[in-house]
Amino acid sequence: MSANKVYLLDGGTLVIDGYHAFWNRGPGGELRFPCYAILIDHPDGLYIFDTGYDHAHVERVLPFEKPLQTEAQTIPGQLATVGLRPSDINYVINSHYHFDHCGGNIHLTEACTLCHAKELEACASPHPFEMLGYSDVRFSPDISAKRGAPAEPALDIYTPKFETLTNDQEIAKGMWLFETPGHTAGHYSLMVELPDRRPMLFSADACYSKQNMDLMCISSFHLDPVASLQSMERLKELAEKYDAELFYSHDPASYPDYLLAPAFYS
Amino acid sequence: MSANKVYLLDGGTLVIDGYHAFWNRGPGGELRFPCYAILIDHPDGLYIFDTGYDHAHVERVLPFEKPLQTEAQTIPGQLATVGLRPSDINYVINSHYHFDHCGGNIHLTEACTLCHAKELEACASPHPFEMLGYSDVRFSPDISAKRGAPAEPALDIYTPKFETLTNDQEIAKGMWLFETPGHTAGHYSLMVELPDRRPMLFSADACYSKQNMDLMCISSFHLDPVASLQSMERLKELAEKYDAELFYSHDPASYPDYLLAPAFYS
Repeated sequence: MSANKVYLLDGGTLVIDGYHAFWNRGPGGELRFPCYAILIDHPDGLYIFDTGYDHAHVERVLPFEKPLQTEAQTIPGQLATVGLRPSDINYVINSHYHFDHCGGNIHLTEACTLCHAKELEACASPHPFEMLGYSDVRFSPDISAKRGAPAEPALDIYTPKFETLTNDQEIAKGMWLFETPGHTAGHYSLMVELPDRRPMLFSADACYSKQNMDLMCISSFHLDPVASLQSMERLKELAEKYDAELFYSHDPASYPDYLLAPAFYS
Repeated sequence: MSANKVYLLDGGTLVIDGYHAFWNRGPGGELRFPCYAILIDHPDGLYIFDTGYDHAHVERVLPFEKPLQTEAQTIPGQLATVGLRPSDINYVINSHYHFDHCGGNIHLTEACTLCHAKELEACASPHPFEMLGYSDVRFSPDISAKRGAPAEPALDIYTPKFETLTNDQEIAKGMWLFETPGHTAGHYSLMVELPDRRPMLFSADACYSKQNMDLMCISSFHLDPVASLQSMERLKELAEKYDAELFYSHDPASYPDYLLAPAFYS
């Protein structure tokens, strides 16, 4: 049995420079883009792929990204729109551990956390140029402690359960994680099969937007630009192989066409 | 016998965005910076390390870098200030093959060209994001042809002799090439020992400026950011080990303190 429904949970917006969205290409200037989480209602349980950013964290650590996020755009707020509470979620999958993809993990106190093994290592020992990206590691008290006394308020809410993966994985019937490294060391994209439509292929930050794909232009935030390009090529091949529809992670042009919760894909 | 004299040959200036000079850090905005070549008068011959940019090429292919270069700031113009002609030069060494480091090679028709083997391969088959960097390959008619019909006017001036190197190399007494990859695949920095002063360590684009070094912030133009940081660390260690003075490649703040030809270091 494949997934029943997929909800996109709107998570507000952030701002980066055009030179960050389109590496060495631009044009420069402020670019505001959406962030969202993906809720998958599957016979095996409730999954969330990525959890957006935590508004207070961004205000404190990266205020120049000018977060705009209402209470209704938080993970608890979005889950409420579909009649769920954070404690209902069984699994969190993180494409990677940049702050705008794991900020809502802290609400999902009952979930088992799935991620690539290399990603959990990478966010525990970031390179200097990855410090801001990996700045919100409260989802792991262990890693928070290893990274030194956190500037964040302490959390004593939970002891997360991590399950680390490697290689491509069908984590539940019709739900595939595909390795797409480059943006970070252990980045995963997700494909979800549904009964009555084409598979949905969520690039996560292996490709911010359709424009990035059309230009074959990666973002300025990366660990390995060559691997990043290869991962974009891989996404195109996967979309073709499975006749899947690509959903980009931060695409102001495509986002208005996406169905947002409480509406859903099925 | 170590080198006799070192001349810095002023090559004019270019403009990039602050986000390119300081990767993912900025601030943004136009940053004008110097380019220069290094002439080494050595008992074994006359060497030039890097040759700046070709004004016509930049105007044609990268006009947004707003080149400012007088006739006196070309390789022939600069050599004339010290009583030399381009045909007097015995060896050209290129730190790497970005257009602003090899644009003057075409004038040095009698010279043997030294470079890292990996660099010659890289500029023959660039990644998509390296196309503008490796846009001026007229120094090698073979590579120009391999890269397809050039937009540049054809040259029939010479058949350059290449000598490719790997590893660190003492290419002449007291003249060391040190591997500093990351900015490009086969990047070399150069150290020159002189009789009456500390060795001069030319970072080339392994580090644009003192500010980059102080911040440990690489430029946005790179093949491998992790290797780039390791190369910056290596330059610091080399400077300490040899008590060498670092000369940066594109440093508007330090450049006014550099002696320019016809003055020289000895």
